[in-house]
Amino acid sequence: MQKYSFYNDYSEGVHPSILELMAKTNFDQEAGYGNDSLCREAEGLLMAAIANPQAAIHFVSGGTQANQLVLASLLRPYESVIAANTAHINVHEAGAIEATGHKINLIATDDGKLSADQVLEVVAEHTDEHMVKPRAVFISNSSEVGTVYRKAELESLAAACRAHDLYLYLDGARLGSALTSREADFTLADLGRLLDVFYVGGTKNGALIGEAIVINNPALQKDFRFHLKQRGALLAKGRLLGVQYVGLFRENLFFELARHANAMAERLIRGIRKLHFSFLTESTTNQIFPIFPDGLIAELQQLYGFYTWARTGPDFSAVRLVTSWATRAEKVDEFLQDLERLTQHIK
Amino acid sequence: MQKYSFYNDYSEGVHPSILELMAKTNFDQEAGYGNDSLCREAEGLLMAAIANPQAAIHFVSGGTQANQLVLASLLRPYESVIAANTAHINVHEAGAIEATGHKINLIATDDGKLSADQVLEVVAEHTDEHMVKPRAVFISNSSEVGTVYRKAELESLAAACRAHDLYLYLDGARLGSALTSREADFTLADLGRLLDVFYVGGTKNGALIGEAIVINNPALQKDFRFHLKQRGALLAKGRLLGVQYVGLFRENLFFELARHANAMAERLIRGIRKLHFSFLTESTTNQIFPIFPDGLIAELQQLYGFYTWARTGPDFSAVRLVTSWATRAEKVDEFLQDLERLTQHIK
Amino acid sequence: MQKYSFYNDYSEGVHPSILELMAKTNFDQEAGYGNDSLCREAEGLLMAAIANPQAAIHFVSGGTQANQLVLASLLRPYESVIAANTAHINVHEAGAIEATGHKINLIATDDGKLSADQVLEVVAEHTDEHMVKPRAVFISNSSEVGTVYRKAELESLAAACRAHDLYLYLDGARLGSALTSREADFTLADLGRLLDVFYVGGTKNGALIGEAIVINNPALQKDFRFHLKQRGALLAKGRLLGVQYVGLFRENLFFELARHANAMAERLIRGIRKLHFSFLTESTTNQIFPIFPDGLIAELQQLYGFYTWARTGPDFSAVRLVTSWATRAEKVDEFLQDLERLTQHIK
Amino acid sequence: MQKYSFYNDYSEGVHPSILELMAKTNFDQEAGYGNDSLCREAEGLLMAAIANPQAAIHFVSGGTQANQLVLASLLRPYESVIAANTAHINVHEAGAIEATGHKINLIATDDGKLSADQVLEVVAEHTDEHMVKPRAVFISNSSEVGTVYRKAELESLAAACRAHDLYLYLDGARLGSALTSREADFTLADLGRLLDVFYVGGTKNGALIGEAIVINNPALQKDFRFHLKQRGALLAKGRLLGVQYVGLFRENLFFELARHANAMAERLIRGIRKLHFSFLTESTTNQIFPIFPDGLIAELQQLYGFYTWARTGPDFSAVRLVTSWATRAEKVDEFLQDLERLTQHIK
Repeated sequence: MQKYSFYNDYSEGVHPSILELMAKTNFDQEAGYGNDSLCREAEGLLMAAIANPQAAIHFVSGGTQANQLVLASLLRPYESVIAANTAHINVHEAGAIEATGHKINLIATDDGKLSADQVLEVVAEHTDEHMVKPRAVFISNSSEVGTVYRKAELESLAAACRAHDLYLYLDGARLGSALTSREADFTLADLGRLLDVFYVGGTKNGALIGEAIVINNPALQKDFRFHLKQRGALLAKGRLLGVQYVGLFRENLFFELARHANAMAERLIRGIRKLHFSFLTESTTNQIFPIFPDGLIAELQQLYGFYTWARTGPDFSAVRLVTSWATRAEKVDEFLQDLERLTQHIK
Repeated sequence: MQKYSFYNDYSEGVHPSILELMAKTNFDQEAGYGNDSLCREAEGLLMAAIANPQAAIHFVSGGTQANQLVLASLLRPYESVIAANTAHINVHEAGAIEATGHKINLIATDDGKLSADQVLEVVAEHTDEHMVKPRAVFISNSSEVGTVYRKAELESLAAACRAHDLYLYLDGARLGSALTSREADFTLADLGRLLDVFYVGGTKNGALIGEAIVINNPALQKDFRFHLKQRGALLAKGRLLGVQYVGLFRENLFFELARHANAMAERLIRGIRKLHFSFLTESTTNQIFPIFPDGLIAELQQLYGFYTWARTGPDFSAVRLVTSWATRAEKVDEFLQDLERLTQHIK
Repeated sequence: MQKYSFYNDYSEGVHPSILELMAKTNFDQEAGYGNDSLCREAEGLLMAAIANPQAAIHFVSGGTQANQLVLASLLRPYESVIAANTAHINVHEAGAIEATGHKINLIATDDGKLSADQVLEVVAEHTDEHMVKPRAVFISNSSEVGTVYRKAELESLAAACRAHDLYLYLDGARLGSALTSREADFTLADLGRLLDVFYVGGTKNGALIGEAIVINNPALQKDFRFHLKQRGALLAKGRLLGVQYVGLFRENLFFELARHANAMAERLIRGIRKLHFSFLTESTTNQIFPIFPDGLIAELQQLYGFYTWARTGPDFSAVRLVTSWATRAEKVDEFLQDLERLTQHIK
Repeated sequence: MQKYSFYNDYSEGVHPSILELMAKTNFDQEAGYGNDSLCREAEGLLMAAIANPQAAIHFVSGGTQANQLVLASLLRPYESVIAANTAHINVHEAGAIEATGHKINLIATDDGKLSADQVLEVVAEHTDEHMVKPRAVFISNSSEVGTVYRKAELESLAAACRAHDLYLYLDGARLGSALTSREADFTLADLGRLLDVFYVGGTKNGALIGEAIVINNPALQKDFRFHLKQRGALLAKGRLLGVQYVGLFRENLFFELARHANAMAERLIRGIRKLHFSFLTESTTNQIFPIFPDGLIAELQQLYGFYTWARTGPDFSAVRLVTSWATRAEKVDEFLQDLERLTQHIK
């Protein structure tokens, strides 16, 4: 029995204030399939937050579902999406994008981020109908390795995409963490302006379930509910998704929870650095990747839950530690104390 | 503003005892993606209820998702599924089955049910590789028009399927209502024995979300989680689905709620019959289809929410009234009083 | 060993004049994948024949391939195609359309033809995102049961489609036979004007292989070669397809061959009528469906090759007799003599 | 107007002896869809050549079609295929494999070949249902860059695949060239023994059209004709494909033509080496990749048709020269003379 889990940011249920809201509205009779008053309110709150009153907003139950739905709706059969080799859609979605018929054009990265130049290089390689036609660019913010796109990077990608008839799509499973990172120099309103489509992740930031897809580009809004229904994403009790976002955005809960998760990650980083360990990536968000000796990892895993991420040398590996809205500071400190103790023990 | 909704059985949230269970377990750290202790407990409860300890059980978020997943996992690309023309997969899933590449072979029915003979006729028509190869039979119980399969009918279908290398799959979106119908002469254990795959519907019977797919046939169990992941059905917080079924099956809540819904439908039927109206189908479950004059329907819809289902004559239509675990007897009585009043008024 | 085959119109190879053209151009070095001078000439000839210099023309190797390609290119994932229940895409393509993800909305017909009213009825039934969205109409001319659309029928369908945002697509596997039917009051130029897309069948009218897809609607022309390549339809030696159409359209071979096939069918009809047999459909093309006693059919099949098509009564069935460019008049007469002899024998 | 094309091995039509056979059998009435006597004879000849009387053989019209059909028939929806980054299925099929729903797991190579170790590394990385499940390995022989697998390499791959439940599939678009390469130490019979599925390419080795898919593994043979029909690959006049292989294999034409193509490539290599140019890959087959200065390439392309393949340095590129059964020795010599002249001129 482990003391505490740093496996992920979805180990606990839901923030209590959202649970309370669910209880309070539980017996209101609402229309099904997202046509309820809670979804309507949530949409209004999100439109205000992203400063785009023309956006179309749809709530779905998970990130893979969101990615699959959005990309399948953007692309014609022979069109492809450009993504980093580390992208969730490439590695961890069991081929969900290919299952909708589309190729992913991969770009090798260390930091999980794409540059406009890399994108244009891929476009230039695709010259005729014997090859797929790249039509969308997939980025994630924060990325799968904890890094954050800066505003200038997003603007440069958006400009390149616009110039080459590519849609820019951002996976925001951990968008809260990116927005509240100390590096973040962009706001939700910037995303409402720069991206064709993105989603605002709820599940990993205090919601029980839910990701909010935001379609900024009016040309891409038509008939999206048909896609939702056809892919089994339209929940009969769509109110469940709406109420999560009412809870997250009526006040500032979305940002508060993400800030807490980042603060806990920062606390871990400071403690780990003090012990002179290095990191696989420069994360300022709620996923961090310290590099430990394999022996230490084995001992730590007796006490704490976390994933080994990647081998970095003959006797060293990077592990992934994830904090969340529910991570308790005293558990972080306990982890750091155990780490210090085990480190000395190993020496 | 209408007085009350008979639109469907998912107008309210969740049964309070399940909400309580959610609150109680909210801060337990659980593994993601259905590998949590709540899903494990729910699986055990369901296996016991269906008396098949070898069954594989998976929880998903909706009926269309369940149907799409199951059928896509059963069929090779050129194989098809036989279904009634009234089947949900044919009419109301936005082409979800075809979207996975499979044809639906339709059988025209009035009562929403298939017979073994009808199935075998379709099989006989498919003779070579210029046509699809029927490989599965889709039935729903209770059906989309409120009717119920009897045990002998299920046994006859199961025997025909076994004899012709067809998988028998049952959509149980409203299985609770069927099981507690006064006609039901079969149990969950019969389904654990007769069907290759079925699902036990939660959303329409008091759960907040969730359908439990039961794979009885061991040959069909392999790698199902790959299908779940690839189609975006694997929820990060899978605990949400598990806890619903713990709530429904730890005690007898599943049956109690369905029985209540049926009783409310029965109460409506008795009242409507007293006013000499007839019905489109003989329903003993929680969906009923009385036939009213169009003028009466228009007046009733000022007061109550419900769908007009089908035109039955120049001035008459069948409407659909749905009751649920949450339907209040006094609202049923109020509806019947208004109906009586409006009926007299029209005369 | 049977005396002669009336199974179909693809029992022989290719018209000798086309074979000669193949031999003559055999050693010319040509570009691959349809970028050759023969395809270019064939395109020019077809554009002239249909009087639409803006049409895009693509050659493929078969009818199922053409149907699948065209419909997959026309439809978004949730869109469907309306067709007769007798349609080749519904019955005899092993689910090729569903394999691209699209539902076929069926209309029951006896004569294999659709009317504008029937189409509009289907459109009216599809009201929201829980259902597919009909977006195309599939017709075949001549139809699968030998009948022919008249110009007024085509105009009425085209007007209905235009008014309801539907694409009108015509399967012309046996278009030559329709165009030269004694009923035909339309020309290729009418098709170039009325249809969004159609194909001009070669395989069943004297070519060795090949169907010519004609995309009249400029909005549907973009990127079609990507579809061709992705579905394995772009032949390396595309010249093979081009040369067939040069052969069919440089002179009037296409029409001459079809006229011959129709004349042979007419000769069969006259002979069969004289013996007082009736027909399943009123065919004026090269497929006819006489109704014979089952005993007679069994005896005839000892001597001639043909399919039994449909049971029409306890002891009677319709058979399908197909004539072609290669059918010899003396074989038709021999068949009729044998039929007369066997008929008397049976009496 | 260029003097001669070295663009590819499908610039000319068909070997005259096959054309003759087509003419000779042209008016024989044959059954449709590959059920003809020519396909039967061709199957017998191929079974003998590969020494596997249990093989199932199917003829299709092109390589992309063959690859798409075979892989779609081998894989369940969540399964993937491992291939070299240079593989035709990865680069030059417009996403045909992804269009059937399957991911390609890429391995970076310089010589276009995979080793058993590389394959096993990919398998080891795929650990659970969040990722696709590799189930097939795609190799091509000769490869897309002209190289040849040796028998030991094939045996090692076959053993690794068998040990890890992977199907081994070989794309034989240019298999004739590989089999007659001076490096080849394997026979068709070895392929009949080592591979689950492969195809014997006709189009690029003297046939007018056609690739022969050979399914050695009996477990993979069932229902393949359904796949053929559903993907539009079943030609009405299937005899056209059968007659090609009768022509290629009744005598030794298949091997003779490939040997000629290789000899012409060898003649080019010798001449180019004499002028001290190097090559991108060590090809012993009919595709060679000499590296020339960009200026020289520009001048050569005034006279001859060929593709520039890849940039190899600031002023140098590799080009692709392809020879075939139809390449004339005097044209090779003329090319070499022009090359020598232009080389001196440039110096």
